[in-house]
Amino acid sequence: MILTVTLNTALDLTYRVRSLRPDTSHRVTDVLERPGGKGVNVARVLAALGHEVTVTGLAGGATGDLVRAHLARTPRLTDALTPITGPTRRTIAVVSELSGDTTQLNEPGPQVSPSEWAAFLARYDELLPGASAVALCGSLPPGVPVGAYAGLVRAARTAGVPVLLDTSGEPLRRGVAARPDIIKPNADELAELTGSHDPLRATRDARRRGAHCVVASLGPRGLLADTPEGRWRATPPTLLHGNPTGAGDSAVAGLLSALTEQLPWPTRLSRAVALSAATVRAATAGEFDRGVYEEVLGRVVVTGEVSAA
Amino acid sequence: MILTVTLNTALDLTYRVRSLRPDTSHRVTDVLERPGGKGVNVARVLAALGHEVTVTGLAGGATGDLVRAHLARTPRLTDALTPITGPTRRTIAVVSELSGDTTQLNEPGPQVSPSEWAAFLARYDELLPGASAVALCGSLPPGVPVGAYAGLVRAARTAGVPVLLDTSGEPLRRGVAARPDIIKPNADELAELTGSHDPLRATRDARRRGAHCVVASLGPRGLLADTPEGRWRATPPTLLHGNPTGAGDSAVAGLLSALTEQLPWPTRLSRAVALSAATVRAATAGEFDRGVYEEVLGRVVVTGEVSAA
Repeated sequence: MILTVTLNTALDLTYRVRSLRPDTSHRVTDVLERPGGKGVNVARVLAALGHEVTVTGLAGGATGDLVRAHLARTPRLTDALTPITGPTRRTIAVVSELSGDTTQLNEPGPQVSPSEWAAFLARYDELLPGASAVALCGSLPPGVPVGAYAGLVRAARTAGVPVLLDTSGEPLRRGVAARPDIIKPNADELAELTGSHDPLRATRDARRRGAHCVVASLGPRGLLADTPEGRWRATPPTLLHGNPTGAGDSAVAGLLSALTEQLPWPTRLSRAVALSAATVRAATAGEFDRGVYEEVLGRVVVTGEVSAA
Repeated sequence: MILTVTLNTALDLTYRVRSLRPDTSHRVTDVLERPGGKGVNVARVLAALGHEVTVTGLAGGATGDLVRAHLARTPRLTDALTPITGPTRRTIAVVSELSGDTTQLNEPGPQVSPSEWAAFLARYDELLPGASAVALCGSLPPGVPVGAYAGLVRAARTAGVPVLLDTSGEPLRRGVAARPDIIKPNADELAELTGSHDPLRATRDARRRGAHCVVASLGPRGLLADTPEGRWRATPPTLLHGNPTGAGDSAVAGLLSALTEQLPWPTRLSRAVALSAATVRAATAGEFDRGVYEEVLGRVVVTGEVSAA
């Protein structure tokens, strides 16, 4: 099974309104509720692709119960979240019908106690030996140490489990130093980590800081990968317009899916780009359109050079 | 006990953000969660004033459970809500710190089935004989017949329990025809009911349509009452600025509180105006500031004429 870690799970709500106008009252015409947090999103895509996946991390309160109830209904997905007292945060995406704009409201994460964090670490150590790969995704809620991901990366490496890290800021900086197998920053995260806005230079620099492989997301322009096996650029066949929510999480799912099937890097990147495109084009934020995925998969252009062994 | 009916209960969330800007992402700095729906708000003010109060109506889902958990922690308040399958709606008030503006997002109410509605009616009939007064408050969720309040008014009158109706639109129009003891429309609701924007003329007309007494809210300018005993105008000592959320519900609580203590109309109106003012001035939307209440109470100006018997 593939293990995904979501320390800051979320109940993601999407509200449809006619047009969002500050200082007025709005009737929400449609409410969509789904489990969220980046690792949860990755897990749902992996499960939809046919993988057995286990979700661990932290969840609490009535919102945490709703997240877990949604997960319980997802085939091939096992809920191994550690319960906490503080309530799982809500995120609200307000979609204006007239403009198509999305306005995001993100609650702060719950306070996590030292004993809750210790309980999670024990659970993580139990789960690692059974995992073919692990993804560490998203922000840290209050109370979780800023070096949390560095410790989780080290534990995975000790257990011999390939580990992908997808976070930002100081947790990313510290996590990279613990030498994860893959990081998947977007352009902003990569620039914040390395100080460089040149993707080629920045991916190289991120590897020098400790990441074994760097897969940088260039948004609608695809992915750039720098690895010991070679460097590649994977580009979708056309610029796809739509809602980018969850596109990065789908890319992570694509990378892990192909990694656990021991496929070569160009195939991993094609799968990641096609899943991203299929997420951008899905009717519902964070879902992916299987038709688009299958149609795009064979048309992703991967160019690059294999390293001299 | 005083009975309040909330057919469309709500989980009221207040989000504080720095400044709400459409099509951007916001970190919510503070989340406040409280039980809502107009009848629930009325009940909480009545309980805070020292009255025994029973809350009935409809609640369901995880959001309904949260509403009920909050109510269970309120002294002097009994939860007699009828459970339904559909989830109680959320309302979100987004307060911008920079401007002080409030942007409201209201989810639609849950679908109510005929058997759920029948179960509520049976519960209401059981509760009525023990009530010293009943307040019917707020909107109707989908599935509840538009003439619902008219039926509830008639049942209260048959049981000899004074009944106050606080709603709008067609439910108000039909409810008024069933001859409630008191209605408490605001200026817009009164104009919609009667077609007149002149408060004096409109209150008179609303009585002609069936309401025994009409207490019209004139916002920061206080209340106008037209009753068989006389006509009065109650005005706060100063124009108070603040958040008007819940001010109307506090006025209803003031009217019911004084009515069940068999106090005369001018005292009822003073209490209603002082509670409204204390709600507008409270730090938290929908709460009331007891210091402001006590300070304003003796300074409300009531002018009017007693009817010739």
